[in-house]
Amino acid sequence: MSADKKKMTLEWKGNFRFEAKNPNGLTVNFDAPKKYGGDETAPSPMETLLACLAGCTSYDVISILKKKRQNISGYWVEVEGERRDEPPEVYTKIQIKYVIKGKNVGKEAVEKAIQLSYDKYCSVGAMLKKTAEITTSYEIIQE
Amino acid sequence: MSADKKKMTLEWKGNFRFEAKNPNGLTVNFDAPKKYGGDETAPSPMETLLACLAGCTSYDVISILKKKRQNISGYWVEVEGERRDEPPEVYTKIQIKYVIKGKNVGKEAVEKAIQLSYDKYCSVGAMLKKTAEITTSYEIIQE
Repeated sequence: MSADKKKMTLEWKGNFRFEAKNPNGLTVNFDAPKKYGGDETAPSPMETLLACLAGCTSYDVISILKKKRQNISGYWVEVEGERRDEPPEVYTKIQIKYVIKGKNVGKEAVEKAIQLSYDKYCSVGAMLKKTAEITTSYEIIQE
Repeated sequence: MSADKKKMTLEWKGNFRFEAKNPNGLTVNFDAPKKYGGDETAPSPMETLLACLAGCTSYDVISILKKKRQNISGYWVEVEGERRDEPPEVYTKIQIKYVIKGKNVGKEAVEKAIQLSYDKYCSVGAMLKKTAEITTSYEIIQE
C-alpha cells in the first residue's frame, strides 16, 4: 500500500455548512444551494468535485508545460458536468476546456500535457472517468 | 439528461496555486504540498476530494437525521484514504468515520442514514466507490 495516506476532518457548522481541515489546518468549506435548503456560503460538494478535477489536471499540465520550457503567462480551465436525473446524481459527462496564454506556446506541448494528464497522471480524473465520459478541448492565446 | 448542470472555472495563481469559482463567485482554493513543489497555502485536489466525499455524505446524513427528529448538537467526520503507489495515484481504500453528538440519538436512525447515503444518495460516494473500497463506521456521543 502507498505510504501517501491522506486525511481530512469535516465538521458540521449548522444547517448544511461544513468545514473540512487537513492535518496542517488548511481548510475547505461546503454549503448547499438555496433550493436544497442551504445558505449558499460556499460551493457544494459536487461543484467542488469538478474543481478538484480541474485542479488535479492543472497541476499536471502546468508541471509538464514548465518542464517543456513553455512561457505561460495565464492559464484557466472551464469544467462543466451533466448529472443523472435520479439519485445518486453522479456526473455522466464532464467537459474540460483548458485555456493557455503565453508567448510562442507550442500546440504539441499543450496537447501532450493534456493527454499525459488524462491517460497517466491525474488521480482525480482516473477515478471520475469510471462513471463520467470526460472530454477535453483547449485554446491557446498567443501574446 | 439532467437539467442540473454544474460549472466551475479554475484559474492559475502562480506556482501550483489555483482558485476555482462557481457561477455565483463562491470559491475554493488548491495548492500542492511542499514536497511536490507547492507552497501549501490550501489543501491539494486529492485532499479536497476526500473532503467532497465527507461533505456530500454529511449533507445526506444531517438531512435524514433532521427528518427523523434526532436532536444533534455536534457532528464531524474523519475520512482517510490510501492511494496506489504508481500513477494514477487513485484512492484504493477510503474509511469514513462519523461522530454524532446529541441527546437520545438513535443508533438505528444513524445506521439507516449512513446506509441510505452510501447505497442511494451520495453522488460523490457513488463515483469514488468504483475505484476505492469505501468502509464506514460511527460513534454516538450521548449528552
